Amino acid sequence: MTGVSNISASSLSGDQSLSAFGKARATVDGAPLAPDELVGMHAFWRACNYLAVGMIYLRDNPLLREPLKPEHIKNRLLGHWGASPALSFSYTHLSRIIRKNDLDIIFMAGPGHGAPGVLAPVYLEGSYSEIYPDKSLDEEGLLRFFRQFSFPGGIGSHCTPETPGSIHEGGELGYVLSHACGAAFDNPDLIVAAVVGDGEAETGPLATSWHISKFLNPIRDGAVLPILNLNGYKINNPTLLARISHQELEALFVGYGYKPYFVEGSDPETMHQAMAATLDQCVKDIHAAQQEARSSGVATRPRWPMIVLRTPKGWTGPGEVHGHKVEGFWRAHQVPVGDVKKNPESLKLLENWLHSYKPEELFDSNGAPSSAFANLLPAGNRRMGSNPHANGGLLRKALRMPDFRDYAVEVLHPGQSEAENTVPMAKFLRDIMKANMNNFRVFGPDENTSNKLGAIYEVSKKFWIAEYFPEDSDGTELSTDGRVIEMLSEHTMEGMLEGYLLTGRHGFFSTYEAFVHVIDSMYNQHAKWLSICNHLPWRQNISSLNLLITSTVWRQDHNGFTHQDPGFLDVVVNKSAEVTRIYLPPDANTLLSVADHCLVSQNYVNVIVCDKQLHLQYLDMEAAVIHCTKGVSIWDWASNDYGVEPDLVMACAGDVPTQEALAATALLNDEFPDLKIRFINVVDLLRLQPESEHCHGLSDRDFDGLFTRDKPIIFNFHGYPWLIHRLAYRRTNHANMHVRGYKEKGNINTPLELAISNQIDRFSLAIDAIDRVEKLRVVGAHAKERFRNQQIACRAYAHTHGVDNPEIVNWRWPVRHATDSGS
Amino acid sequence: MTGVSNISASSLSGDQSLSAFGKARATVDGAPLAPDELVGMHAFWRACNYLAVGMIYLRDNPLLREPLKPEHIKNRLLGHWGASPALSFSYTHLSRIIRKNDLDIIFMAGPGHGAPGVLAPVYLEGSYSEIYPDKSLDEEGLLRFFRQFSFPGGIGSHCTPETPGSIHEGGELGYVLSHACGAAFDNPDLIVAAVVGDGEAETGPLATSWHISKFLNPIRDGAVLPILNLNGYKINNPTLLARISHQELEALFVGYGYKPYFVEGSDPETMHQAMAATLDQCVKDIHAAQQEARSSGVATRPRWPMIVLRTPKGWTGPGEVHGHKVEGFWRAHQVPVGDVKKNPESLKLLENWLHSYKPEELFDSNGAPSSAFANLLPAGNRRMGSNPHANGGLLRKALRMPDFRDYAVEVLHPGQSEAENTVPMAKFLRDIMKANMNNFRVFGPDENTSNKLGAIYEVSKKFWIAEYFPEDSDGTELSTDGRVIEMLSEHTMEGMLEGYLLTGRHGFFSTYEAFVHVIDSMYNQHAKWLSICNHLPWRQNISSLNLLITSTVWRQDHNGFTHQDPGFLDVVVNKSAEVTRIYLPPDANTLLSVADHCLVSQNYVNVIVCDKQLHLQYLDMEAAVIHCTKGVSIWDWASNDYGVEPDLVMACAGDVPTQEALAATALLNDEFPDLKIRFINVVDLLRLQPESEHCHGLSDRDFDGLFTRDKPIIFNFHGYPWLIHRLAYRRTNHANMHVRGYKEKGNINTPLELAISNQIDRFSLAIDAIDRVEKLRVVGAHAKERFRNQQIACRAYAHTHGVDNPEIVNWRWPVRHATDSGS
Repeated sequence: MTGVSNISASSLSGDQSLSAFGKARATVDGAPLAPDELVGMHAFWRACNYLAVGMIYLRDNPLLREPLKPEHIKNRLLGHWGASPALSFSYTHLSRIIRKNDLDIIFMAGPGHGAPGVLAPVYLEGSYSEIYPDKSLDEEGLLRFFRQFSFPGGIGSHCTPETPGSIHEGGELGYVLSHACGAAFDNPDLIVAAVVGDGEAETGPLATSWHISKFLNPIRDGAVLPILNLNGYKINNPTLLARISHQELEALFVGYGYKPYFVEGSDPETMHQAMAATLDQCVKDIHAAQQEARSSGVATRPRWPMIVLRTPKGWTGPGEVHGHKVEGFWRAHQVPVGDVKKNPESLKLLENWLHSYKPEELFDSNGAPSSAFANLLPAGNRRMGSNPHANGGLLRKALRMPDFRDYAVEVLHPGQSEAENTVPMAKFLRDIMKANMNNFRVFGPDENTSNKLGAIYEVSKKFWIAEYFPEDSDGTELSTDGRVIEMLSEHTMEGMLEGYLLTGRHGFFSTYEAFVHVIDSMYNQHAKWLSICNHLPWRQNISSLNLLITSTVWRQDHNGFTHQDPGFLDVVVNKSAEVTRIYLPPDANTLLSVADHCLVSQNYVNVIVCDKQLHLQYLDMEAAVIHCTKGVSIWDWASNDYGVEPDLVMACAGDVPTQEALAATALLNDEFPDLKIRFINVVDLLRLQPESEHCHGLSDRDFDGLFTRDKPIIFNFHGYPWLIHRLAYRRTNHANMHVRGYKEKGNINTPLELAISNQIDRFSLAIDAIDRVEKLRVVGAHAKERFRNQQIACRAYAHTHGVDNPEIVNWRWPVRHATDSGS
Repeated sequence: MTGVSNISASSLSGDQSLSAFGKARATVDGAPLAPDELVGMHAFWRACNYLAVGMIYLRDNPLLREPLKPEHIKNRLLGHWGASPALSFSYTHLSRIIRKNDLDIIFMAGPGHGAPGVLAPVYLEGSYSEIYPDKSLDEEGLLRFFRQFSFPGGIGSHCTPETPGSIHEGGELGYVLSHACGAAFDNPDLIVAAVVGDGEAETGPLATSWHISKFLNPIRDGAVLPILNLNGYKINNPTLLARISHQELEALFVGYGYKPYFVEGSDPETMHQAMAATLDQCVKDIHAAQQEARSSGVATRPRWPMIVLRTPKGWTGPGEVHGHKVEGFWRAHQVPVGDVKKNPESLKLLENWLHSYKPEELFDSNGAPSSAFANLLPAGNRRMGSNPHANGGLLRKALRMPDFRDYAVEVLHPGQSEAENTVPMAKFLRDIMKANMNNFRVFGPDENTSNKLGAIYEVSKKFWIAEYFPEDSDGTELSTDGRVIEMLSEHTMEGMLEGYLLTGRHGFFSTYEAFVHVIDSMYNQHAKWLSICNHLPWRQNISSLNLLITSTVWRQDHNGFTHQDPGFLDVVVNKSAEVTRIYLPPDANTLLSVADHCLVSQNYVNVIVCDKQLHLQYLDMEAAVIHCTKGVSIWDWASNDYGVEPDLVMACAGDVPTQEALAATALLNDEFPDLKIRFINVVDLLRLQPESEHCHGLSDRDFDGLFTRDKPIIFNFHGYPWLIHRLAYRRTNHANMHVRGYKEKGNINTPLELAISNQIDRFSLAIDAIDRVEKLRVVGAHAKERFRNQQIACRAYAHTHGVDNPEIVNWRWPVRHATDSGS
């Protein structure tokens, strides 16, 4: 067998400084805690640890007032002990500096699976019982508090939305620093203490988010205080950062722009003193940096403090269980002693462990936490479990909104003129920004200009606090007080926006469709967070997360096949209908109307798909508002089935698909003037679902009225075609619905050629009509050939000239038709 | 307006060392290039740059043998100039050290949108024409080479699979180092030169992948040489790493475990010397580290070299265009001069720019590259465009496979006994590893043990080359020659596996279902890569990417709602049917059979969904092989419709859903002995699609034969229910198909309670049957009530006891039935 036998001697000898055991070693000297304060804080932390163990194990005898028996133990032992003690240790010390300095601090637990280490102090400080009165500060409440943890019908084992003071669940790892940074934006007096687990620190999103040090303005923003907890282990492995030398570790954080303070050890007394001294120093550093910038009015990037807290995993837990090391090892990760119900020795071990915290000193005769704790803890909203920033809806103020109609593009006749769809919205966003200069932000991964949102820089530039070069003044749009945040990390942008929203503000994120899958999982987590919050009456509504997906699949002219992926929508629709909204505005005015709706909405994720390039414009503002309000409607001017049953329903969703569907309709009108076509555009995609599935869903009566019960439907869709089937499969006329959309087909570069290859082009749709409308099958044979010929010629043109045929590019909806419909 | 006005003086003054202009500044001294070598290399690089510009602009007059006219210019100018020169500069210098030291080096372009900087040297060295003879080394071939670039019917603008020597497209950013590391594994003599863009460096996946320094064994593996190209800008912004101080930058890479060598400047002569001296030093460092380890047999972690190459963006391009700085600024990102077809001044500027490379010195009269280049370049397979490692199928050897049947669990009667489904497969993987100790690896984000794959450590442990502690010997399974790779970054694991496969090896990746969405986008990119390769005859087949998704949605007992997400499958099915496969084996033997099939397959992404916990076992090995080969089949022993038409089809896919469907069938059998039920299990999910859509798709005849044309179908599915509808909506009997699956419903913790809440439990299914089978509607009323009562009781039991009702947990398929079916 392989093994450690071939390790070099130098390596095997280990780096003594990497051990978390023993008396504290710390960068900052000093022992600021007076003896009684030290005793009190240690008692509070013991109480936290006692509660953490109780949550995992106990279903009865919560104060250990009788000998521990198997029937006091839960039937299933679930939860994570390992990360808990260092979380509550941090919480305890942060509570001290809040009280000492009257600070405004919120707490984020990166390793959210250490929820017992957060729930415990939140309960002990009284926040929990105020929100959940049945979890009262007495023996009965404590028992309920224990029983509910990771229990059917109870709460999960992470810092879920049910946790007072939490805006970061820490289920999926990697986002604590970007969430923290978002929370700190525009909250100049807030400090966000963010515990980063050393497991989490291995994830990509976390690794790059150390760069938040370059996105915080010491004048206008609050501070983030990262506390990297090196407990040394993940589930079954050591962590990378715990096993590199002190020098490398220090260099890494200096490299990321921090001043790292180390606090390492396990001896409680010296660790309390070291942590207290270090936090005093961090607060001093933060205030010094902020005061210097605020008094001078000059924002430069400080070397922000951060703490490396090296402690044993499962600190204060059993050192050894059944002959295996547990405290300070990965075996402490979840439940350190598993067989307590069956093995009397293990039960005894657990009992001794619980007794080691001396619960009799920590709770009074009613089971209430010792009144002595009150002298150590902040009060009211200063308690981190009660801080209103962590229930952002409490602080949220509605945006001051300009009238989106003022940004309308003029549309005299539908389908005659072109505009870049995102440009008017950019002006709208600009003026929203102008009217909300302390609670609205725009985020993007270096794509806002590319996405034609540049107008926003007229009001506020991109935040930049690193070095400036003279050439930056030529259009780079940087400023140390910019409110637009750009970094080439979709993860960080999404995380910052979430943090900003969760603390009661408003924002807008635009990103390329090709890369939005990068944040699939973050979308999922946020949507889940929102859907839980909808069932917690004490959680106040927050602003929706507004995501504009642009540079879409149909305009990947630079990049080709690998940048074609409209599948984010398939991820979106999997989440609860309560919180998901999808809009595909076909032109600039509909985008404005949709954006206005999204920006004032609450508790949703609004996904808007709209390309940034020049597109035909269809609806004037009045028509756009009507269309968007209905979500799906017949475009009269493109239909000729007035007063009769249509022969064909031509439906579409998305900008390019709408254009092609209109062009197909025009082709068919020319060839078959008697063919009655009903033209339907869908802006609000989830209208297609049954009303039982989504509150936006059309009733079957309305759906049948629009799409008929039995006529052929051709549906030209922006995304993968299956999504339409998935939404509409229960509809009466589904069997007649033929959907075209994107399919994976290779490497194609100009728009029409791409449309042709994916068969969402006008010719394919017109051919579909001939194939599907019974009365055209015979008479349409020649037209079908002509359409096919034109299709082939278009492709050949693109392959020869490198651009689409101008006849196609310059195609306009025939005016005669538009005027006709007005009569 | 805001602006740079409020920047501090110290900040505005800038850090002179951050400028990329001027004579070279470098960590390594020396000028190793002889004068003629210097001249030659510079000429080769000029030729590369000339070609890069030509690709972007020219559709005629490729050698500038006549004055440049508008008609020589492409109609659309697409491509990225900015990153190209530094890529070809690196390629040029790497070619030199290959030739000088007879090295085996492959090249990866992180900023793959700088493809012109890669395509150019690959063409000039002759590799391109050997694969694409029409892109010959003469004027005609050169013109074709120019025209095809980012052109309809041509190639994309990234290092797509069509690029010889590329196994990393660099479309989506962030994965170049993990790909490079995967390529270097088990290739002791290979150096993977990986250019990291400073835009890419801001992404999360890239940021954490600097840790690959801790995953390379200097004895057994090759080396990765990262070249961080600080060209300073992204699309419209400076990059973070280019605007921090030299000290911070150096500290960062020291922190990540490297020895950073800086090469900074723009003056070609001194930059060539500095780069040559630096690469000589890097090769020396790499060889020294490897030789020390290889001669001593002791693997310790070297401080691997890396290069920080700071050069102007768009180096050697126009300094200024229309009054705006371009070289060394973000304006050089894509096409530096846009209006060349219309503006004669711009055309002249382009012409002068092209002439600045002196093409007349670089190509002979036929348009072939100067013969002098041959003296500078490596030959044959040493050319990076021809290195077989970058066409891994050329080197791939089939795995030596043990017989999976030998790992079978005994199943005497279906549904009687339990096993942990992944455990037998772990033993199978162990023995595959044992038989393939230099071309098979297992990857996981610290979850292999949790996923019950621990058996593999009997043969090879987890690679660990950081510090060791004495306690590591107690079950941590670490070794410096371990072949299992674990790091808490799904991105890095997936990237390493992809790099390993693309260079012709084999691998297996297991990850929690809850977090597999983290790599949605990587999956998409890899699937797209594979589907392009399927159309390139010169790309040899590589091993499939095998992904086991475990710790599934139905067993999130520790974690609850936020860890419930079976939606990865919805992402998978969007990609080309040519490359996607999804398997849901219901038990251990079917998992073995599926795993065997996947591990020997080629050019697919195989996604296997199978939970790790104890589950009922249904099929003995013989039955498992038959079932998996068919992909979907009737389970006779669970059916009672022999020789008659069934009243109901009970179908299922996935382990927990199968158990519940069987239990429902048993309930119905008890209540309604005359009810004829056909029980169908689906292992190969894509069998449900029409054969026109997926080559695994059942014919309509077969589908109708199994699922009937008109009987009610109840389908109990592992994932979101819509996926089944999406796959099967075209089937004859789709309207009668009622699918149950996961829906977003909140925070639930024990398995059965979760099943009940999501209505995939036995009682819900049995009630469905009563509702849907006409003849049960009346007679079933009482049974329906009883089922509902039992359902409510089960939930109440879980809420009281914290575990599922033992009657449910201990449920077994009735033996009488199993025996009956044998008769």
